[in-house]
Parts: sequence; structure tokens; C-alpha cells
Amino acid sequence: MSISTREWQLVRRPHGEPVAEDFRLVSAERPDPADGEVVVQTIAMSVDPYMRGRMSAAKSYAASWELGETMQGGAVGQVVASRSDAVPEGALVLHGLGWRDVAVVPAKHVSVVEPLPGLPLSLYLGVLGMPGLTAYAGLFRLADFREGDAVFVSGAAGAVGSLVGQFARLRGASRVVGSAGTPEKVRWLREELGFSAAFDYHDGKVADLLTAAAPDGIDVFFDNVGGEHLEAAIGAFRTYGRAALCGSISGYNATTAPPGPRNLGFIVGKQLTLRGFIVGSHADLRPEFVGAVSGWLQDGSLVARETVVDGLDSAVDAFRALLSGGNTGKMVVRLAPDPS
Amino acid sequence: MSISTREWQLVRRPHGEPVAEDFRLVSAERPDPADGEVVVQTIAMSVDPYMRGRMSAAKSYAASWELGETMQGGAVGQVVASRSDAVPEGALVLHGLGWRDVAVVPAKHVSVVEPLPGLPLSLYLGVLGMPGLTAYAGLFRLADFREGDAVFVSGAAGAVGSLVGQFARLRGASRVVGSAGTPEKVRWLREELGFSAAFDYHDGKVADLLTAAAPDGIDVFFDNVGGEHLEAAIGAFRTYGRAALCGSISGYNATTAPPGPRNLGFIVGKQLTLRGFIVGSHADLRPEFVGAVSGWLQDGSLVARETVVDGLDSAVDAFRALLSGGNTGKMVVRLAPDPS
Repeated sequence: MSISTREWQLVRRPHGEPVAEDFRLVSAERPDPADGEVVVQTIAMSVDPYMRGRMSAAKSYAASWELGETMQGGAVGQVVASRSDAVPEGALVLHGLGWRDVAVVPAKHVSVVEPLPGLPLSLYLGVLGMPGLTAYAGLFRLADFREGDAVFVSGAAGAVGSLVGQFARLRGASRVVGSAGTPEKVRWLREELGFSAAFDYHDGKVADLLTAAAPDGIDVFFDNVGGEHLEAAIGAFRTYGRAALCGSISGYNATTAPPGPRNLGFIVGKQLTLRGFIVGSHADLRPEFVGAVSGWLQDGSLVARETVVDGLDSAVDAFRALLSGGNTGKMVVRLAPDPS
Repeated sequence: MSISTREWQLVRRPHGEPVAEDFRLVSAERPDPADGEVVVQTIAMSVDPYMRGRMSAAKSYAASWELGETMQGGAVGQVVASRSDAVPEGALVLHGLGWRDVAVVPAKHVSVVEPLPGLPLSLYLGVLGMPGLTAYAGLFRLADFREGDAVFVSGAAGAVGSLVGQFARLRGASRVVGSAGTPEKVRWLREELGFSAAFDYHDGKVADLLTAAAPDGIDVFFDNVGGEHLEAAIGAFRTYGRAALCGSISGYNATTAPPGPRNLGFIVGKQLTLRGFIVGSHADLRPEFVGAVSGWLQDGSLVARETVVDGLDSAVDAFRALLSGGNTGKMVVRLAPDPS
């Protein structure tokens, strides 16, 4: 016996921007679940910027994907067959074997999740999942956010950035400034998410735009973009400014290393702290994070927007769109109707 | 009545490397001490890299010096006239009005210091003073040094760097690596100061030299130099590496901003922390610092070397030599015989 699946594989390492030919969608036969395994029908899978790094052969914090192997990533689904007492058929689960319509996975590698009445299950891939914890850990632990701080977040309309700005507002920031890549995103940040100011980084030099948006300077910077944004933030920092460096999507498709900020001397003079981090090192914050975010979701004070792409066939397109800013909020690929 | 003094003034803001014409040595008449003031005969004055910043009009953490005003800086001397009960004639004092042979200064702005039997009083300008506290705060607070760490220090033969490396060794570093600018300095670091390895940064790419000197990578970087050294350290860091950024003497005479490191992406991937600092913000560590360093000096486990230049007339030359690495250990200018 076996289970027919459809799965996305990496067949060539992208050079610069990933193209369709770097991937293939294959039909595969997976063996029936062994003892302790479950079969999960994917409801939604995640595409995330960090996956670009896994497509590269360069050493990074996440191991490179092998060519010809099925890719992986966050996914939520429903157990359709179980050989585990701990995770029965029908359970809703979160696991790490995305990029496929059906996953056969050890029960110990899945987390059973509660349905979210009135909310999509895919929130476990975003505000209640890895991106949410990334925003929470970066803002509150790495950047040591304190009430009254002025906060700047780059990539502010993305899955992580849109939460960082809202978390800062909800915890008493004096000012929340975001940058994004389209007028629609900028409007959304200002009008729906309650940012104090936002700008489209295409409209000028980031340093000038930031100075106009935060004329008194900033205390905290949460960076998803890198490059010019980091240089602008270093220039805008007040004394004792703190940056949580989460990623640098502006450079993920770069084929040559861009030069770093020219104003690093300010790090000494302004007594700044720059800290890079990976969410996996901060799992101890999860209970605190889930408590805070669940409360904000329930009382409606937090907006958790998704950009939903339909169908496994579109997953690579969704990933490519993500790298060029085609999402507002969390980008997810929906593979099956949401039962919740 | 008045007191005749000789004083160094800044008369032109240096463009690039300071030249003799940027300064003048003047004879001045200072009024006799007012109530609460003391007259101090300078025994030794300090020249320090941070003074290059004060010569510039650019905003920095230390205010710019005015043109035509006498420069300032650390100095030790003996009180030759006093109108303060707290600081009697004959007292040895540390104060901030260097660059002159005689200073008239409020008693509340001087610190009375103990003679150092068998040691020069100028150690209060180095190992027991601002450079010493800089090394101590940077290594133990900012870089959060822990026993077993592998440490790399740039400008390792300088006043601060030579102490950083020794502090790390004395507190149980697994490896201490230093960079310097001459073969003599490198030999001194290895043979006299107990560095595990040292290299001359003229001998190749800093990244390659560092890899050879610390093949297993580093945990802590203390940076006095900036530029290529910082990029090399970021490349050599292990996970959770920590940098204390103290200065960037390589760029102090630069007339255009050099590009930053091209490998900042490692800050995220390796979860690094980079912290700039200014010693003035860490004065609370002084009692702990003095206790530790006094002990090491007394038991002979710490080498506190000075490069001594004689005479006020040579002070500008000493400062210019400092910026091009003409010192080993602390650069001081001796103006009068040391009574201790």
C-alpha cells in the first residue's frame, strides 16, 4: 500500500531571483504510516523569506535543501490516518513538512492545535506561529523595547513587520514608523494598523524619508530588509538605540555582497546595540507570547492579515511573489478548505 | 598677579591627517587661583585617539573643541598652590585640563590620587584610568566575556587593546588573539603579554590572518580599529559572538566614509551582538575595576607599558604619532619629573 502525494522539489539552486525552472512539482508514492506516524492532509502551507537561504548551498543557520528532495516548511492540516494514540484521526496539527498536499510524519513531530472559531487555521503559520514569535522575541527581548520608545520597522507590511508595529503600539510606543513598498501598504499601515507614520521606500532616500517620519529620532529598529534601511536607522538612532536584526530580504536574491552601512561609526558614538537573532533560539518565550497574542486577537486589538494564494500548483509563484513584496501580511498557500 | 603658562591650541580643523599647522603653542597668563581653585603643575598629560573627534566640527559624543581655545585632556600633576582645604598644596591629582604645563582648576574637578611606589604616576592616565576602565567595561560588560571564550582584539598593542588581551587571559580566555601594525608589537604581544597568537595586519588580508590565528573561531571581539578588522571578526565569529566596539582609529583621519562590512548577514545567521560604547557611561564599574587592576599590578601579572614622549613642545607630535601607531601601550607626554 502507499499514499499518492504531490510535492514541490528544488532541482536547481537559484542564481539571483528564483525562477520556475529551479523547481518541479512531482507525484510521489509515500509508504503507509508506520507505527507512531500520522497522515496529514495539508490545509495551508507557509512560504517564508528564510526559505531563500535554504535554496542556497551557502552555509547558513538553516541547512541547505538537497537538490531533488522535497522542500519543507510550516504547514497546518488535518490527520486523515493515524498510527499514534497521541494524535488521533481528525486532529488539527501544525508540522514542518509543507510543500506537499499530504504528509506522512511522526506524531512526535506534530503539534496538535485548537480550532480558531471564526478565524482561519493558517493563523498558526503567522500571528500565532513562527512569524508571530519572531516579532515578539525580536521586539521585546532582542531590542529590549520599553514603553515610550519610538520604533521603526522595515518590511512593515510583511508577516513579521506588521506584528512588530502593532505589538509596539499595544505596549505603549511613543511613535511607530514603518516602511513598505507600495502606496497601498503604506495606507494600510497608517489607516488599519495604527502606525504613527509610514512611507514607501521607493519615494526617496530611506534616510530622508525616515527623518521626515521620525524627526525626533528612534530608539528601536526592527529590521527585515537590511541594506539602506539599516544605514538609515543607524543615522536616526538616539543614544542607546537598539536594533533587532531579523533578516535582510533586500539582499536575498543578491549575487554579490552589498557593502554595509557607511555610518557604523555611530554605533560607538551613540552607544548602539545591534543584535541578530533566529527565532528558534527563543522558544522559551512561546507561552508568554501565546498568552499576549491570543488576548489581543480575542479583543480585536490586533489585525492579522493574510495574503492567500490557492492551490499547491501556485506555491512556487507565491514564494517568488513573497520575495518581491507581493504580500500584505502573512503569505499562505491554501490547499484545502479550512474546517474551522 | 597672574600665572604664566604654555598651552596648546587648535587653530584649524584638520583635514585628514592632522598637521603641525593645525595647532599652536602659546604663552598665556592665567589669573591666580580664585577661592576653591588649585594650581597644578603638570607631570604628565595624555594623548588619546578620541581627541581626533574633538578636533572635528562634526557632532560626536565629545563636544568639538573651539578654534583658538586651549585643548583639554587627562593629566596628572602636583598642586603647587591651593585655595581649597580639600586639596592641599603638594597633593598629587588627576584632572581634565591637559595640553598645558600649568593648570588652574576648581578643586572639585580634580581627583586626589595616591603615589604609586615604584610605578610612574602616569599610570593614572592609562591602566588605572580611562583606557583601563574602557578595556574593563568593554570586555566584561559590553562583550559579556565569559571564562573559556576565544577573544580577538584589534589595536592590541595600544593602551586599551593591550589591557583587553591581558584581562581576558587573566580571567580564563581559551585563546587571546591580537592584531597590531609592526613586527615588534606582534612579538611583544606574544612574548611579553601572553597572547596566544598575534599578527601584523600588513601581512595579508585580516580575514585570512585571523583565520590562521584563531582557526576555531572567536566568541568575543574588542574593536579599536574598525573597517576591515570588523568584517574579519564578523566572519570569524561563532554563534552568539559578541563585539564591543570601542573605536575605529583606521577611519579617524578618513575624509570620506568607508563602506561597512559586506558580511553583515552573518549578524542574523550567527545571532551576533554588536555594541558600541563610551567609557563615560560605565563609571559605576570603577570601584570593581580599580580593585581588580590594582591587584594584578601589585602581583605583577599585568604589564602596563607606556610610550613616553618628553616635553610639552612634543605633545602634538606625540598625538600625531599615536594616530599612526607610533606607540606601544599608552602614549603619554612627560612634562616634569615624576615625584613618586
